[in-house]
Amino acid sequence: MLSKEAKEAIKIARTIKEQQSDALTPDQAVYLRNDADKNNSVPVPDDIQLDEVTEGTKGELYHFNNVKDTVLMFIHGGAYATGTVKSRRNLCFNLLRRLLCDGFSVEYRQWPEAKHPAAQEDVLAAYSFLKRRYKHVLIFGESAGATLALTLTLQLKAEHKELPDKLAVFSPVITQVNTMPSEFLMQERDPMLLGAGEPVPYFAEPYKNDPLISPIFGDFTGFPPLMINCGSEEVKYDDSKVLNYLCQKAGVDVNWTVWQDLFHVFVLFDMPETNQALDKIANFLK
Amino acid sequence: MLSKEAKEAIKIARTIKEQQSDALTPDQAVYLRNDADKNNSVPVPDDIQLDEVTEGTKGELYHFNNVKDTVLMFIHGGAYATGTVKSRRNLCFNLLRRLLCDGFSVEYRQWPEAKHPAAQEDVLAAYSFLKRRYKHVLIFGESAGATLALTLTLQLKAEHKELPDKLAVFSPVITQVNTMPSEFLMQERDPMLLGAGEPVPYFAEPYKNDPLISPIFGDFTGFPPLMINCGSEEVKYDDSKVLNYLCQKAGVDVNWTVWQDLFHVFVLFDMPETNQALDKIANFLK
Repeated sequence: MLSKEAKEAIKIARTIKEQQSDALTPDQAVYLRNDADKNNSVPVPDDIQLDEVTEGTKGELYHFNNVKDTVLMFIHGGAYATGTVKSRRNLCFNLLRRLLCDGFSVEYRQWPEAKHPAAQEDVLAAYSFLKRRYKHVLIFGESAGATLALTLTLQLKAEHKELPDKLAVFSPVITQVNTMPSEFLMQERDPMLLGAGEPVPYFAEPYKNDPLISPIFGDFTGFPPLMINCGSEEVKYDDSKVLNYLCQKAGVDVNWTVWQDLFHVFVLFDMPETNQALDKIANFLK
Repeated sequence: MLSKEAKEAIKIARTIKEQQSDALTPDQAVYLRNDADKNNSVPVPDDIQLDEVTEGTKGELYHFNNVKDTVLMFIHGGAYATGTVKSRRNLCFNLLRRLLCDGFSVEYRQWPEAKHPAAQEDVLAAYSFLKRRYKHVLIFGESAGATLALTLTLQLKAEHKELPDKLAVFSPVITQVNTMPSEFLMQERDPMLLGAGEPVPYFAEPYKNDPLISPIFGDFTGFPPLMINCGSEEVKYDDSKVLNYLCQKAGVDVNWTVWQDLFHVFVLFDMPETNQALDKIANFLK
């Protein structure tokens, strides 16, 4: 049975869905970011030291006085348009508390200010920034941030660079085209996302066969250990299913966990199931 | 349980799969057509009068001395490259015997001689040819021929022309991109097709968002009654699943039948399951 809190979260998710429309305007994207910062941010707690990184790469560097050679690179989601670093602080801190390592939440360029490959360039720069400072880089990404975790690693692989130690992706999106069966068949069941809509406006060529746009076209051979988490009720469910397949067939050490009756990036909500999922992800990343 | 004949057919399908490669050459396409004509054609039986249509539209017109105001337009498959009219005669006759109407098996241009939209133009011309001669046009298409049945109807709809009375599609393909989960997950189970390969060479722009290339992008509102048949073990299984969804949601009178443990266009084989399927399709088309 879902917890009381999860049932409440599903109600909230439904109200988010009701406000959604297929066509996001530039103004809405900016409004949603400001709104997220205002309503979903938390202060930095006393045991974490915040370094705002503003030169070259941008983001929030969170210092713990603990494991010093490892950093978690955190990539938020939001359809390359509506997500922010501050609104994901709580999720990021909850992961860092379990890992006891430093964290870096990358601020990457999004639509409408920028278009592809701006975000890809920014996560690549952030990764280089972190590799100069830490021996081990772990990556967590959710939704579009999960896509960026995958496209970043695909690009690093293509350029024969050192790969992250481990990847954990939550509710990944592996094709921008939105034609997976779950995009259609889960439209009524998914409490949060509409499904089967137009591609996000961030990509000028969303239909292109390009693994840095749609990682479904990528070759995952040689990927580091990968953990996939998703909800069973997501319109993006098949993205996880196919990613798991592609990685398994490419010989990647892949773990796919489906959280029954739950929804897209449910770990953004404070509920027992989030704690369970974060425990599992932290155990994997450790 | 599958019939003895079906089990034998699966073995034959497996040998076809073993000969497949991801990249069809122009020579192979032409060879396979000649080979199909040589090995899979049957003579025209005495009770059917053959008219070879060679001007304007091309194909074989089969006259029965029975229902005179109705014609079955038959569109063969073969990845827009390897199929032929003659090699599908047996299947077409088996359908016509159940319908007792005339039939027209359209010969459309394929790769390597032609590229999209040649086949689309040819089925459109064939449909006009038949509408001038018959009151009722029923359409049956298998595999790429099923795609053409759908893209033809989408185009007729867009041009506000009279639509066919009914459509029966067998093992339809609704996206040229080959990224459906079943393309990946059924690769080992499908006895006939490799799955998840490159798009067919017939399309110059297979990744384009164009309903006349990939009918998954089409609007099926107002479609005539549609019957979908497929095998449960197809890499194209999800194409049928999503087509059924799209039509159901568009208010189309749609019937989807999944033939358990069977494969892509299994009705090309002589077996009890083929008779069952053709009975069902004929009952629908009548």
